Amino acid sequence: MKTYRKELYFNTSTRRSIINITSQVQNAIDESGIKEGLVLVNAMHITASVFINDDERGLHKDYEKWLEKLAPEKPYSQYQHNSYEDNADAHLKRTIMGRESVIAITNGQLDFGPWEQIFYYELDGKREKRALIKIIGS
Amino acid sequence: MKTYRKELYFNTSTRRSIINITSQVQNAIDESGIKEGLVLVNAMHITASVFINDDERGLHKDYEKWLEKLAPEKPYSQYQHNSYEDNADAHLKRTIMGRESVIAITNGQLDFGPWEQIFYYELDGKREKRALIKIIGS
Amino acid sequence: MKTYRKELYFNTSTRRSIINITSQVQNAIDESGIKEGLVLVNAMHITASVFINDDERGLHKDYEKWLEKLAPEKPYSQYQHNSYEDNADAHLKRTIMGRESVIAITNGQLDFGPWEQIFYYELDGKREKRALIKIIGS
Repeated sequence: MKTYRKELYFNTSTRRSIINITSQVQNAIDESGIKEGLVLVNAMHITASVFINDDERGLHKDYEKWLEKLAPEKPYSQYQHNSYEDNADAHLKRTIMGRESVIAITNGQLDFGPWEQIFYYELDGKREKRALIKIIGS
Repeated sequence: MKTYRKELYFNTSTRRSIINITSQVQNAIDESGIKEGLVLVNAMHITASVFINDDERGLHKDYEKWLEKLAPEKPYSQYQHNSYEDNADAHLKRTIMGRESVIAITNGQLDFGPWEQIFYYELDGKREKRALIKIIGS
Repeated sequence: MKTYRKELYFNTSTRRSIINITSQVQNAIDESGIKEGLVLVNAMHITASVFINDDERGLHKDYEKWLEKLAPEKPYSQYQHNSYEDNADAHLKRTIMGRESVIAITNGQLDFGPWEQIFYYELDGKREKRALIKIIGS
């Protein structure tokens, strides 16, 4: 059994941003030499998400609007967490989007359906943050 | 370390449908010969979900009504993704339900609590779609 | 490849409760002797969640209020599942929070970002319930 670990770094210019990291995850699999196994990809921060869906610009705008409806950023005073922060909404939005994805590796490739792509969703950006790739297999 | 891979196929007659796949996942574990490890079960399409909950008809109707409240199907024009599709709601509903489940395998069995069952949730059906089972262990 | 299995037990005095289980998961990793791999932590009951976020009291109160808005407990009659139960809301709340977390193990430690902590979220307590820890690695 082999394992491989890699971190990805992000520093977005906006509070929220959706970044396609599929090729970076595949690169890590290539570097690992692992042909059969699982790859875990997770945000290392609690106001960001790793999720799998379609790389379609309209859908990403729908996510923005929808998350803002389910967990509005403002008014900041609606959240107790915001007594010394302003990012409670980011914690809740990331809860809906999920912290992590686990993906099968088959023949050295991400074992994906036709439209699956991996995204890092920054929900409280403008500073350096990280995602973790951990691969286990043979 | 051994791995095993299997696909499940679905073609539902309705737009949405909840299908219990627990026995099919256990069959794949049996076929794999793996006694200790993890099994990943994920939708291979981005408008479907694999989730774990109770096999209770009332609850499944509650899911339908609840998801429709949180991410309504219509009017289609409320979603930018629907400029050339009508399934934006399915992408959002699957986000709440989740893409995948990871389950422990112990003594060759799904290591479940008393009521845990695995479901495929079709959210944009009437066409062939797939779920992936990937098993890793020894 | 090695695996290790452990159950955690809970019996909360209130219907809902958020319990930090990070040190218990690290203890299980220590007991396993596994240095590199993955750990799955999941609720074994379908009205509870295992999730990762911040150990901050204000945020936990925000979760309570937010989940109650998205999936209200009462009136019980709004849910079909409640014809013989009163916990349909707990099934829905756990769906938002998630059943499980998968975490990387590196050098025998939970491979976490600066604020990540693991919680068991009891959503229908006042009785004995369990979470499962399954570790796989070398």
